[in-house]
Amino acid sequence: MPDISLLQNKNRKFATGLLNSISDVEGVSVGHFTLNDGKIQTGVTALLPHVGNIFTDKVPAACHVINGFGKSTGLIQIQELGNIETPIILTNTLSVGTAFDSLVRYMLNENDQIGTTTGTVNPVICECNDGFLNDIRGQHISSCHIEEALKNTKSNLGRGFERGAVGAGRGMSCYEMKGGIGTSSCIVQSLSDNYTLGALVLTNFGKLEDFSIYGKANGELFKKLQSATSPDKGSVIVILATDAPLSDRQLKRLATRAVSGLARTGAYIASGSGEIVISFSTRNKIPHYPLTEILEHQYLHEDHLDLFFSAATEAVEEAVIDSLVSAERVTGRDGHTRFSLKEFISGKLESRIEEK
Amino acid sequence: MPDISLLQNKNRKFATGLLNSISDVEGVSVGHFTLNDGKIQTGVTALLPHVGNIFTDKVPAACHVINGFGKSTGLIQIQELGNIETPIILTNTLSVGTAFDSLVRYMLNENDQIGTTTGTVNPVICECNDGFLNDIRGQHISSCHIEEALKNTKSNLGRGFERGAVGAGRGMSCYEMKGGIGTSSCIVQSLSDNYTLGALVLTNFGKLEDFSIYGKANGELFKKLQSATSPDKGSVIVILATDAPLSDRQLKRLATRAVSGLARTGAYIASGSGEIVISFSTRNKIPHYPLTEILEHQYLHEDHLDLFFSAATEAVEEAVIDSLVSAERVTGRDGHTRFSLKEFISGKLESRIEEK
Amino acid sequence: MPDISLLQNKNRKFATGLLNSISDVEGVSVGHFTLNDGKIQTGVTALLPHVGNIFTDKVPAACHVINGFGKSTGLIQIQELGNIETPIILTNTLSVGTAFDSLVRYMLNENDQIGTTTGTVNPVICECNDGFLNDIRGQHISSCHIEEALKNTKSNLGRGFERGAVGAGRGMSCYEMKGGIGTSSCIVQSLSDNYTLGALVLTNFGKLEDFSIYGKANGELFKKLQSATSPDKGSVIVILATDAPLSDRQLKRLATRAVSGLARTGAYIASGSGEIVISFSTRNKIPHYPLTEILEHQYLHEDHLDLFFSAATEAVEEAVIDSLVSAERVTGRDGHTRFSLKEFISGKLESRIEEK
Amino acid sequence: MPDISLLQNKNRKFATGLLNSISDVEGVSVGHFTLNDGKIQTGVTALLPHVGNIFTDKVPAACHVINGFGKSTGLIQIQELGNIETPIILTNTLSVGTAFDSLVRYMLNENDQIGTTTGTVNPVICECNDGFLNDIRGQHISSCHIEEALKNTKSNLGRGFERGAVGAGRGMSCYEMKGGIGTSSCIVQSLSDNYTLGALVLTNFGKLEDFSIYGKANGELFKKLQSATSPDKGSVIVILATDAPLSDRQLKRLATRAVSGLARTGAYIASGSGEIVISFSTRNKIPHYPLTEILEHQYLHEDHLDLFFSAATEAVEEAVIDSLVSAERVTGRDGHTRFSLKEFISGKLESRIEEK
Repeated sequence: MPDISLLQNKNRKFATGLLNSISDVEGVSVGHFTLNDGKIQTGVTALLPHVGNIFTDKVPAACHVINGFGKSTGLIQIQELGNIETPIILTNTLSVGTAFDSLVRYMLNENDQIGTTTGTVNPVICECNDGFLNDIRGQHISSCHIEEALKNTKSNLGRGFERGAVGAGRGMSCYEMKGGIGTSSCIVQSLSDNYTLGALVLTNFGKLEDFSIYGKANGELFKKLQSATSPDKGSVIVILATDAPLSDRQLKRLATRAVSGLARTGAYIASGSGEIVISFSTRNKIPHYPLTEILEHQYLHEDHLDLFFSAATEAVEEAVIDSLVSAERVTGRDGHTRFSLKEFISGKLESRIEEK
Repeated sequence: MPDISLLQNKNRKFATGLLNSISDVEGVSVGHFTLNDGKIQTGVTALLPHVGNIFTDKVPAACHVINGFGKSTGLIQIQELGNIETPIILTNTLSVGTAFDSLVRYMLNENDQIGTTTGTVNPVICECNDGFLNDIRGQHISSCHIEEALKNTKSNLGRGFERGAVGAGRGMSCYEMKGGIGTSSCIVQSLSDNYTLGALVLTNFGKLEDFSIYGKANGELFKKLQSATSPDKGSVIVILATDAPLSDRQLKRLATRAVSGLARTGAYIASGSGEIVISFSTRNKIPHYPLTEILEHQYLHEDHLDLFFSAATEAVEEAVIDSLVSAERVTGRDGHTRFSLKEFISGKLESRIEEK
Repeated sequence: MPDISLLQNKNRKFATGLLNSISDVEGVSVGHFTLNDGKIQTGVTALLPHVGNIFTDKVPAACHVINGFGKSTGLIQIQELGNIETPIILTNTLSVGTAFDSLVRYMLNENDQIGTTTGTVNPVICECNDGFLNDIRGQHISSCHIEEALKNTKSNLGRGFERGAVGAGRGMSCYEMKGGIGTSSCIVQSLSDNYTLGALVLTNFGKLEDFSIYGKANGELFKKLQSATSPDKGSVIVILATDAPLSDRQLKRLATRAVSGLARTGAYIASGSGEIVISFSTRNKIPHYPLTEILEHQYLHEDHLDLFFSAATEAVEEAVIDSLVSAERVTGRDGHTRFSLKEFISGKLESRIEEK
Repeated sequence: MPDISLLQNKNRKFATGLLNSISDVEGVSVGHFTLNDGKIQTGVTALLPHVGNIFTDKVPAACHVINGFGKSTGLIQIQELGNIETPIILTNTLSVGTAFDSLVRYMLNENDQIGTTTGTVNPVICECNDGFLNDIRGQHISSCHIEEALKNTKSNLGRGFERGAVGAGRGMSCYEMKGGIGTSSCIVQSLSDNYTLGALVLTNFGKLEDFSIYGKANGELFKKLQSATSPDKGSVIVILATDAPLSDRQLKRLATRAVSGLARTGAYIASGSGEIVISFSTRNKIPHYPLTEILEHQYLHEDHLDLFFSAATEAVEEAVIDSLVSAERVTGRDGHTRFSLKEFISGKLESRIEEK
């Protein structure tokens, strides 16, 4: 039996939202599509920032590149214009093109005017390389998988969603264990209101020897299991959502804090790791067709951001652990296997690994 | 008859290369695929930095975002790692996904090890919105068009290539005239050697009232033709290539100079314009599989960059003008027409436009 | 007699403010202190963004580094927090320390709480190297000169201020002529209101052979005077002020447009040139001691920025020309002399230069 | 008696250099000047990258702004040119001007040609706000203190230097305990050679409740001492030095890893914290007066950086702890006191604090 107490965060400073999930931010929904078929271990995860038309009612947003060994799309325009105007799609690296193409088509269907009476649209696609478990060269993600994941966001609205080895997380590895999708949320009690801040992560980074969980390092956890020393070619995507009134610049500042949460789990930002953060706030909307030339937005005074920065760190740390705790063992291409954190903790695993 | 003398650059400071083209940089080749069928006015332009395997022998590179209202891919990794490892594809905005997907497949075909024994690959796709002339919503670019353009780079190696309303430039507009593909080159006589610096542009920006050509403003050229005041939703892509030994940081500095060349033609960097610069040097190669841990690169001392900066400005200015001079009139979707610069200069046009 | 018509901008698209000066933006004032004593040809220029206490009522601001061969201070915090909380001081490169120190003291005097009950303060100092005319090694700027310039902002409030070879501009060179302080303004007629946008420049860059004035290149102006080919070790500081409601991100976008104005005068951003832009808006204030946690700001919808971008280009171009037109000939250290643009235009100069 | 075992890093992956100090990087030397006089608790720390003339033989360098609520100078030019050409001075925020001025004078004395036959010089000054313990408004640092610190680098060459409440660290606070100067080093065994990587930190950030030491959180250490909830207005400066052949871009990548080391001690990058990293390599020199136009530099292939990134994380974490372990209790202005970590660990302190 795994010692579950290890997996509890005793240092938590913030209360969690109802589901301890990014879905606790009202209107945010997440949907998956998973491919699990022998050497094909991959998938798609879609996130919708709000229930309305995201193109005509954009949300303030920012992004931050922790390490740019990655192929995500859409970041340049987020940076320039400070908004997001599409759902966010997560998938494997070599399927970014398909995801871009499919998301464009989805947006064209929902918005007649794109490409005719108005300009184009900025698809946001984030990715990690699941090639260890998945036949990534096969480019198995097709257009209908993207659509399916987008459709599934709707059915999950207001409810939780699966985590671990699902959706884009199906083939991902984290600290040489099975990683994937994780989430967490914090309630930030400010003077003016209670706000929710949620994190969604797609984890695919790290080496076992570096892993630490709520302050307990690998050595204490697993008798210092040494893994085969393949270079860390992973990545991690972090999405931060909040209902607090943060400006795009403040969201940028928020995004830069995610790295602290990653570091608490042992990460040191390996050279080959594409580490990308996107943050958005659902509080203010930016109309594509404004009724007036001048907009009016509320935002928090800078003196009140520290709680959010601290919460972002906590939510990201816990979302990473959640991705590990939630993921079941997966065997994929060429018999490659990633065991689950629970198997590691239970101790049964160690003998088996040593046999290899 | 157009007054051709207007179209000559009397202020040139640098000699041009043999073809006054980016192909003057040894090993650089450019190929097009053009779709010209009624409302379908679009295409693909591919650029190969050298004749070898660009994945196993990468080139030092940099990028610069003048204005980030754009959807180009691959820039984050260029910025992080300072290299390019694929051909560069130019196409229309809503076909970036297809181009990404096709370029991945092309790279997988050429390199067995991608996604299995080594990591993934970083496709560089740049785009402008040709929706004024082209039925961009139709997403008419398909995988075979990308392949065709890539194939055509080979046949153009060491020779020139078509400019104007061809390839990715087929549907583009510049200063409300017909724009598209333009190129130019400069010979930089340094102490150590003669170097070549070439520019390739995909022009799709600007309003007629702002246009100026080698110091002569719109008013002198065309009796101040006033265009319908649609907002400037264009873009411009600039690629700079050189055989001079520049480091990635120096290439970044070079890339930031392109804006001066654009400005000389009248640009003020409109809000809706995605303006992206990519620069690379063919002198040093970065091996994917290094024989030794330590590499040795030559590069120019910083004191010797000014000639290159000045040349980049000149080459970009002249490449923009070249795209206008080379482009023939195109009529596309909904009867939208862009007249050529030559038609404007000839004067016959003015009456026709005034009739509208 | 100089042909004054050359010096008029016939391409102007925007009406100027009352004084064609950055002071046309209500509340913005500029003051100088000038040292003119043989080999000592230097000075200080101070700019106050508004008449109140700039520390307790900060203004939204942004900065942009065109070329970072410069020693300006305060930019990191402007970038992070999106505001300015001190006057802006311009001076020579080696006097930045003195200016920093003096501006701190000025701020401490005006604000008891800095460094005790509240944090510190972020002094914004910009600089160019006036070492060609000025004995810059002498570090002749002292604390009282900074104070004097700050005091002089008050007396100039609502009026114009001297331009050319005054204040920080005293020892500066532009296109190998006498440069210095220049200014200009544009009235931007938007749907909601008439806004003012003003530019202040400190010009110290460029080579004579590259100079062009409202489309007329060096050759037409001066029979292609060739200067001694010393490397371009200059710099330029641009400050943009507006009363339009722009957010810090929008001000950043505005700042990136200044380079187009510089390019129109012939600049190609030389390697040794520190080119820095600071922009701010006087419309919204950011309180150091907010009454409420949540602030409410107005700002323009992104679709309405193009006029401001175009105006910024025009104002910067004209401010550079203004610095040249306003500056009188100065002779400084080791007999080094910079002639005025008017002398060049008059034609008398050419024979003299050719004699050298 | 403090439980010293808590203060040992049992997770160390790399061997330390001889002194476990940034001085282990050959040629790097550090000197202090300390002011300890009642309410005056401040100082200066100077670092010399090598023993030669740093202006004529610059070193490749990079910088990274973790959080830009800071007033450090010189970063813009490091970013643009990829080198450092002066010693690095650390001091308190309001003395940056004095330090800039003094460092300029020091450089002028050592280099006749600055400001006459060559351009100017880029002083690198970093700072934290020591206003809690120090009468920072008094601006007590004078020119001779800077000179003294610079002189002291020479006597410390090849030896260690004091850490804790000395030099610029005299008045600094870390996790609401006494912080200041800390250092550490790692030996990186690469294929080609053994390299040394050293970190120097000036710590002035964090809240006690967030502190954790080698995985052990505050609660385990001190029975969850709660501090008065003043906002975190601190800062931290990190300097990374190595003798490995890293290019400026690689040094930039190295600098971005420092944040992981900070995060391991509990940091979440508070809003008011100026967190700056500077990194340099002593392996290649960049001559101010090059003998040839083309330089030749060695650098590590990108695949071999991970050990350095991991080492940077470890060295920064340990340097932060070193600053706390080394610092003795200090009482400064208005009776403000920071107790030492050792006092906290010993347990005696807790009763005293609870009495307050």
